[in-house]
Amino acid sequence: MAARQSRMKQPNRSAAEGHGVEEREPTPAQQLADRIARTLYERDKASQALGIRIVEVGPGYSRLAMAVRPDMVNGHLICHGGMVFTLADSAFAFACNSYNENTVAAAASIDFLAPSRQGDELTAIATEVWRSRRNGIYEVTVTNQQGARIALFRGRSARIDGHVVNTTEGHEL
Amino acid sequence: MAARQSRMKQPNRSAAEGHGVEEREPTPAQQLADRIARTLYERDKASQALGIRIVEVGPGYSRLAMAVRPDMVNGHLICHGGMVFTLADSAFAFACNSYNENTVAAAASIDFLAPSRQGDELTAIATEVWRSRRNGIYEVTVTNQQGARIALFRGRSARIDGHVVNTTEGHEL
Amino acid sequence: MAARQSRMKQPNRSAAEGHGVEEREPTPAQQLADRIARTLYERDKASQALGIRIVEVGPGYSRLAMAVRPDMVNGHLICHGGMVFTLADSAFAFACNSYNENTVAAAASIDFLAPSRQGDELTAIATEVWRSRRNGIYEVTVTNQQGARIALFRGRSARIDGHVVNTTEGHEL
Amino acid sequence: MAARQSRMKQPNRSAAEGHGVEEREPTPAQQLADRIARTLYERDKASQALGIRIVEVGPGYSRLAMAVRPDMVNGHLICHGGMVFTLADSAFAFACNSYNENTVAAAASIDFLAPSRQGDELTAIATEVWRSRRNGIYEVTVTNQQGARIALFRGRSARIDGHVVNTTEGHEL
Repeated sequence: MAARQSRMKQPNRSAAEGHGVEEREPTPAQQLADRIARTLYERDKASQALGIRIVEVGPGYSRLAMAVRPDMVNGHLICHGGMVFTLADSAFAFACNSYNENTVAAAASIDFLAPSRQGDELTAIATEVWRSRRNGIYEVTVTNQQGARIALFRGRSARIDGHVVNTTEGHEL
Repeated sequence: MAARQSRMKQPNRSAAEGHGVEEREPTPAQQLADRIARTLYERDKASQALGIRIVEVGPGYSRLAMAVRPDMVNGHLICHGGMVFTLADSAFAFACNSYNENTVAAAASIDFLAPSRQGDELTAIATEVWRSRRNGIYEVTVTNQQGARIALFRGRSARIDGHVVNTTEGHEL
Repeated sequence: MAARQSRMKQPNRSAAEGHGVEEREPTPAQQLADRIARTLYERDKASQALGIRIVEVGPGYSRLAMAVRPDMVNGHLICHGGMVFTLADSAFAFACNSYNENTVAAAASIDFLAPSRQGDELTAIATEVWRSRRNGIYEVTVTNQQGARIALFRGRSARIDGHVVNTTEGHEL
Repeated sequence: MAARQSRMKQPNRSAAEGHGVEEREPTPAQQLADRIARTLYERDKASQALGIRIVEVGPGYSRLAMAVRPDMVNGHLICHGGMVFTLADSAFAFACNSYNENTVAAAASIDFLAPSRQGDELTAIATEVWRSRRNGIYEVTVTNQQGARIALFRGRSARIDGHVVNTTEGHEL
């Protein structure tokens, strides 16, 4: 994550918001990651429907948040594992698409460490473990508002054709 | 699945509905699986919210269905992997809780074989691969309306305390 | 390998085989799988060193055997999980290379269901679950001499360049 | 790894060997981990047979090494995935048994990132990701002599009855 010099707090906020002091200019890679995240999120009706929010993104990185709503519990009255997985999978998607190569999940695994409950605020942090020309491996840790780990996710990405955003328009990203 | 002599089409329907002919009486294990499924489904607000329907259940077995809605697509405009996982995870839950021991997922893995799209009708079939006193392994295959395989899911279950339904009321299930 | 020639070449062959009536000629796909297995096994010093034997192969299929030797136990005096994995991984390799496209493991997972011990005779059966142009998924079940399941393995294969055997020599396989 | 104040270079060496200066006394947890590693390794004929060496251990931690020998290559003339897995699995075992609760692998997954070849010197570092009373999750990274990552392994441990070494003899460990 050494390259992640700037942090996008929300896709629609300017990087300097709330600081009032000069910040280093985001790198082109960071600017591209921000732009891709905005584009993907706008299309990603599933993440929107679950109230998943992008906290920050960067090259090979993302941090997302989701509150556990009443319509997310399972038959044991804890957060449905599928909801936890979806949050982690979205974090994985924002991280692995951040280089502007269309990328999808080929496979993923998840370990459920502790239950989460209605009202919990979950955070998913996705980091890149390895990346080749065609595939990548990303780890996502899901924690609750106390910082307790809820789940560990590992995803294998696969590049498909195309790009998320058009970068050949003759002006800066 | 030899013991699964009757089929529950929906948790609230009687097994013979729509047949008008005599059917073999469901086994106690099947009756228990049906009753558990109804109880779990009623509490499972996540499965309900996604329109997941129980097609049939049995001891160590379940078959669920879900239509891919407009609010289930991701940033690449295909069904979000988390929605496919959630369907499979619910199928896993109905299968592994069918013996009336409270059981949750300890871990799961999924391979995404083909994309699904808005309007697709997905089916998840969960079967029990192995079960010990405390743990179990279940496989779930997700297919679309053409029968094409969309995803393969494998879940590891862990028993926790308690039972799904009360079976000590002094009468048969 | 010699012992394998009179056995079932494909899991779905005619029931008449081996009953003292004339045998159907192996299909070209079966002949190719046999030839590939011989070639791979000759180079596969690891499988040889562990005493792994090929029982039968076919397109997308293999069945291997291995005795648990004194030098295969771990610190708990049961068969080392790595030895069970190696047997399964070899079965996976013989199955996924059977089409004569050089293929390696990209990833694998294993569930250990029961311990095995020195003197046990393990069998690994690999079957193809799914295959695309570039990737495949194979399941391997490892059982002991009583037929009890020891481990379940799932491997993801990836094609690399080249072929196992040369099939362009101007005569049939 | 905060608790790992001293490092065992080889199980049979004293911690201070080759330094000639005073070292901090190993913690009781470190002494126990060292003692367990020696005991397990002595019984672990599989690790011995493959030339696996313990470089260091600590509570929830281990570092092992293995040279890729001529009898470890597979049919593609690269190191057999089972040999890489076995090294990682041994590292996992030394890490998860380091608290003196008999612990075995319930499941494991491995991603093969790059091939290794005859003559390569592989290192496996196992770290504890999470641990509950009964289960644990460990990650193992396998690298070659250039530091390139060969494989990523994740194991799920399960406690069984008993202890590796006897600590109730009435004297210090």
